[in-house]
Amino acid sequence: MDPSLLDPYAGRRCLVTGGLGFIGSNLALALDHAGAEVVVVDSLVPRHGGNRRNLAGAERTRVVIADVADRAAVGEPAGAADVVFNLAGQVSHVDSMADPQFDLEVNTRSQLGFLELLRSVNPEAVVVFTSTRQIFGHPQYLPVDEEHPVKPVDVNGVTKWAAEQFHLLYHDVYGLRSTALRLTNVFGPRQRLRDNFQGFLPIFVRRALEDESITVFGDGSQQRDCLFVDDVVECLLRAGATEDAAGEIFNIGNDERLTLRQIADSVVHAAGSGRVELAPWPRDRDAIDIGSYYGDSSKAKRILDWAPRTSFAAGIAETVAFYHERRSWYL
Amino acid sequence: MDPSLLDPYAGRRCLVTGGLGFIGSNLALALDHAGAEVVVVDSLVPRHGGNRRNLAGAERTRVVIADVADRAAVGEPAGAADVVFNLAGQVSHVDSMADPQFDLEVNTRSQLGFLELLRSVNPEAVVVFTSTRQIFGHPQYLPVDEEHPVKPVDVNGVTKWAAEQFHLLYHDVYGLRSTALRLTNVFGPRQRLRDNFQGFLPIFVRRALEDESITVFGDGSQQRDCLFVDDVVECLLRAGATEDAAGEIFNIGNDERLTLRQIADSVVHAAGSGRVELAPWPRDRDAIDIGSYYGDSSKAKRILDWAPRTSFAAGIAETVAFYHERRSWYL
Repeated sequence: MDPSLLDPYAGRRCLVTGGLGFIGSNLALALDHAGAEVVVVDSLVPRHGGNRRNLAGAERTRVVIADVADRAAVGEPAGAADVVFNLAGQVSHVDSMADPQFDLEVNTRSQLGFLELLRSVNPEAVVVFTSTRQIFGHPQYLPVDEEHPVKPVDVNGVTKWAAEQFHLLYHDVYGLRSTALRLTNVFGPRQRLRDNFQGFLPIFVRRALEDESITVFGDGSQQRDCLFVDDVVECLLRAGATEDAAGEIFNIGNDERLTLRQIADSVVHAAGSGRVELAPWPRDRDAIDIGSYYGDSSKAKRILDWAPRTSFAAGIAETVAFYHERRSWYL
Repeated sequence: MDPSLLDPYAGRRCLVTGGLGFIGSNLALALDHAGAEVVVVDSLVPRHGGNRRNLAGAERTRVVIADVADRAAVGEPAGAADVVFNLAGQVSHVDSMADPQFDLEVNTRSQLGFLELLRSVNPEAVVVFTSTRQIFGHPQYLPVDEEHPVKPVDVNGVTKWAAEQFHLLYHDVYGLRSTALRLTNVFGPRQRLRDNFQGFLPIFVRRALEDESITVFGDGSQQRDCLFVDDVVECLLRAGATEDAAGEIFNIGNDERLTLRQIADSVVHAAGSGRVELAPWPRDRDAIDIGSYYGDSSKAKRILDWAPRTSFAAGIAETVAFYHERRSWYL
């Protein structure tokens, strides 16, 4: 990461919601090391990505265990924050279908409550919210830009879109300086690997690390763009420091596009264990296959001056090395 | 209304949520008179459109006062229904901004609970859901078709869009035969007139009936398409009887486009009282003015074989006559 990106954050008060989770903890660590005053809010919902060990080494960071809409617990740090990185949420497609009401509760209702809280205690806060490429569903064209029609194919896509739109609305109507980043698939250290609910990348990584088979359906020719978490942290830092980002939405993807087969092969190669197995599509293919997806990040390049720097091969090597050293924490 | 439209509903079990409200009661009356077995579910939230007098004359209709997600109260009629007309909701832009959490509760959370209920007790139900043109915000082009980007400018637009998408999702994933109709401004008998929260048309009607001034900002040249409620009832009946409507979304507008000035003049003319006053735009114009809006109903014409039949002049004359006879019930 370009170290100068952290300069604007030295001594500044940063609130990171979902800061015990995958991306949030990587961000909080970077901010902590840069001398920011970091407060992490995380509800540590079981099965979500939160893990106290993710913040090992963040000596100065304060951790508040609470829902983001909990005024008693979150009011003070929310009111004091110069920049709010709002990453709290439920990211599991599977869980969103199994318990849609809970997904709505966490991803939309709590987020709306948090925005109401910010509006009252910190109405001019800079807020960087992480949305998801899931909202687009089956791409109608590639790469997917910000103008692409939104047609979620799961509950999570609806609830995240609603939260994203609330952020933009609170900018337009109340002047909150909020930005939404629609992230593609992210991988790297500190991601929850224990189960099958966080997307295909952590599943691939865990199976390789445990010397098991990675199953790829069909010929695995569907393309994806993946982002190494450090590149996402860099994007978050840029968004939080770019005035023109307020009120804007950005698709955050990667010009490096790989097939699922290539991704699986690369994970096995980096891990030095596991293997790739091709399997015929299950009967409910239409329900689970969105075909190829990759995003168009031109707007982020233009306004945030951001571009990913890490190749998949380099990122996955770093990822695997991280988990090899801390196997018992994550597996 | 074409009476043959009601034939498919004779003897059939129809559930109308929001059936004490404006559009719901007009629909329930038509179904009741056609010999359908109608159950109305309405939560009679104060200030929403529900009014027990709206169903005066619906002798055979059963009324259940409950939230649509209340399984104990709604499970039985939901399980028995051949067709569900799902009109329950909060429609007020103003109220959605004053209490966003409540708007989310009513328009999204209860709707998601209702869909979960239907999925368990009546998984192949025909469900016709009423969404709103509010989801589009400022039109990027006119007339607004189904492909137009969605960019709500109020909380209500976000919460209604989420509910609409849940209906489509429960079709795609679970086979519920749901359809969503994005209605433009609707007027007619049985609309709540008492306050200023249901949109501009009932405000215009009330002010004229009370011989007050109707305020039109600027030169009143922004165009709108308005629909008489009988035409909307016809559209609902067609949607509930058209197999190809399942899983589809329709913009329901009107090719008759009028300026706000023309609409106000027409209301005053029909009422024989009131007057139109032009006023300069308030300073927060950008927050409240979406410019001209009218919808493209080609898809509804093609698939539902629907087109509105009532001119604004004829509809407003019938509307005014209705309220003149029942002034004390509505004013």
